[in-house]
Amino acid sequence: MLVQKSIKVVTRGRGTHEITDTIQEIVGGAGIANGLCQVFVHHTSASLMLCENADPAVLTDLETIMARIAPDGDPEYRHTAEGPDDMAAHMRSVLTQTGLSIPVTGQRCDLGTWQGVYLWEHRYEGHQRRITVSVLGE
Amino acid sequence: MLVQKSIKVVTRGRGTHEITDTIQEIVGGAGIANGLCQVFVHHTSASLMLCENADPAVLTDLETIMARIAPDGDPEYRHTAEGPDDMAAHMRSVLTQTGLSIPVTGQRCDLGTWQGVYLWEHRYEGHQRRITVSVLGE
Amino acid sequence: MLVQKSIKVVTRGRGTHEITDTIQEIVGGAGIANGLCQVFVHHTSASLMLCENADPAVLTDLETIMARIAPDGDPEYRHTAEGPDDMAAHMRSVLTQTGLSIPVTGQRCDLGTWQGVYLWEHRYEGHQRRITVSVLGE
Repeated sequence: MLVQKSIKVVTRGRGTHEITDTIQEIVGGAGIANGLCQVFVHHTSASLMLCENADPAVLTDLETIMARIAPDGDPEYRHTAEGPDDMAAHMRSVLTQTGLSIPVTGQRCDLGTWQGVYLWEHRYEGHQRRITVSVLGE
Repeated sequence: MLVQKSIKVVTRGRGTHEITDTIQEIVGGAGIANGLCQVFVHHTSASLMLCENADPAVLTDLETIMARIAPDGDPEYRHTAEGPDDMAAHMRSVLTQTGLSIPVTGQRCDLGTWQGVYLWEHRYEGHQRRITVSVLGE
Repeated sequence: MLVQKSIKVVTRGRGTHEITDTIQEIVGGAGIANGLCQVFVHHTSASLMLCENADPAVLTDLETIMARIAPDGDPEYRHTAEGPDDMAAHMRSVLTQTGLSIPVTGQRCDLGTWQGVYLWEHRYEGHQRRITVSVLGE
């Protein structure tokens, strides 16, 4: 069995947006007891991740480290037409995930105690981001 | 068809733990000839990777580079309550994989000659890590 | 339903090779309307990514950043027998993807407007790289 649903998430600019509840709702309504849930973001300057969802400082620190690894406005960048955050956004996306697969057990994504599903907007400005959730199983 | 199995891996602190044989055993016993195997770790401070399993120096070098990208005890971290390795562990997890999908052919994960499946413990202390293996196919 | 196909891609040395059309052809011929497409590379020194496919400067800039994160010929590397690019190649592979899962809708990978599927060769010399495409669905 397969259930697929597309959703839109409106971001408020660079930063993380937890979407765990939305994903669990879709999986809960899919009528699939056991299988896999795949979450996919249809963009190259936003990405997905599983991260600790207890202490918000974790998300701040992720930004701190990411800003060093894939700096904004690096003088060596050639892809600069869309602003200093654009090339950094592509690199951040390549280093994280465009898709996440999570086991489904008992009609729920079987996440660990501290695992939250996040959409990570990498552009300075907010965007409408399309995400597709596919649930496969029995 | 779907077969799901959860296993526990006890780590000995930071470092890699090869789990290729365990994964192949589960896939071999699943009774699924062809399809996909998905391996998922239910934690945010340990992760999964596929890496060369011939020369152990590769794993040492991975630690060397990772320690520069996501340093322990960075003075800018705010998430520090659980020790200098905790925030670094979350970042390491975000930069690698929480889940791996591998094609199944002839009742085996069709890994390349040098590909091993590794659990990467990112905390200094050993932990019991839960991993779920899902095999989908026919 | 499941359709699996293995392909070989001959690379010309370090750099990206777009394989979007090849993947779409396989998915188009699989006779599966909706589901998931999983692309897997059977190597530890080449990887896969989804990236913007409009401006080739993005791909140049990815190389620039990657060369800093996972430098060639680092004096601390111990895995050096196969040349200065070998250990860097393993690290680049670990930081990007060995496998990509993409939703299939209407017999096509449902990629975003700017998303291209790339094989990223990390060794200096060209190689023949094996990739398996699995299409699961109904």
